[in-house]
Amino acid sequence: MHRPPLKHCRVCGTAVAYRLPDDGDTKERAVCPACGTVHYDNPLNVVGTVPVWGAEGEQVLLCKRNIEPRWGKWTLPAGFMELGETTAEGAARETHEEAGAQFEMLGLFTVMNVVRVGQVHLYYRSRLLSTEFHPGHETIEARLFTESEIPWEEIAFKTVKETLACYFADRRKGRYDIHTLDID
Amino acid sequence: MHRPPLKHCRVCGTAVAYRLPDDGDTKERAVCPACGTVHYDNPLNVVGTVPVWGAEGEQVLLCKRNIEPRWGKWTLPAGFMELGETTAEGAARETHEEAGAQFEMLGLFTVMNVVRVGQVHLYYRSRLLSTEFHPGHETIEARLFTESEIPWEEIAFKTVKETLACYFADRRKGRYDIHTLDID
Repeated sequence: MHRPPLKHCRVCGTAVAYRLPDDGDTKERAVCPACGTVHYDNPLNVVGTVPVWGAEGEQVLLCKRNIEPRWGKWTLPAGFMELGETTAEGAARETHEEAGAQFEMLGLFTVMNVVRVGQVHLYYRSRLLSTEFHPGHETIEARLFTESEIPWEEIAFKTVKETLACYFADRRKGRYDIHTLDID
Repeated sequence: MHRPPLKHCRVCGTAVAYRLPDDGDTKERAVCPACGTVHYDNPLNVVGTVPVWGAEGEQVLLCKRNIEPRWGKWTLPAGFMELGETTAEGAARETHEEAGAQFEMLGLFTVMNVVRVGQVHLYYRSRLLSTEFHPGHETIEARLFTESEIPWEEIAFKTVKETLACYFADRRKGRYDIHTLDID
């Protein structure tokens, strides 16, 4: 999901002009010269989980991507948050869709800003209830990895790498915190 | 900032049709019959701060709203997160704009889902460096309140009320956590 530049008004279809709106706003927006609609583009949330298995959460579920970008690379289940759901509900939905896993949701774990692409990524911890996975069409394969098995060079996204690193560090400490990070 | 329903393609201006896209998506989207652009509407982030003053953070800065909705009600400084900034940078920007306060940012404090309006609200704690405020045009008055002075019935938004309640509860405990809440 990407957003091509807005050239036409979403309400009436007229070509927009980029200018300061008349309401005191200090940023240029796409303003419709016909109906006056002001259009805003804002950051998007990506929500996902760190699904773990084992008495001490020693294994993490990763999904091998069957879609671009990063086809064939490994990721945690995650995707764009939708209207009508909470961050946790969106994270659970993506875990169902991409891994077909049975799990219970635990707490919020990482909140990461990725300014370069206009996104905020939020990951929750989750506990797997079974090791049977039924990955959807976006996933080639879903499998469990111990820390030493994680294919660090084959991880699809920096936010996933950081979240996995936080998970194994907290696991060693024996306490899971909520981590806030800014990603280049 | 609200988003009127999308009726025309943002790229070419043609009237869109609401239907399932052809890429396996399971939700109806606004699809352009002319250029094929698929449009997504997603939740927005609102970012703000809890600016506190005093050796033990005993006073909190609130702003009396000079804009609708909730004109004349009290709020914490907050607003929509913009592209090009982190959640913390957006929260700081809003605190400058609405209160004209001098402060330093502290950690993330509340993460609240408001599904009904398609928003996620994130508040940071901040420490005021001065009690001189220069509120912008969106604020009638900015002033400090102790816990017993908070005008609970005159607070503009439930997320602000919940964040203030978390703040004073944590202050009594002597430890500030990150709180996740779903707001009706």
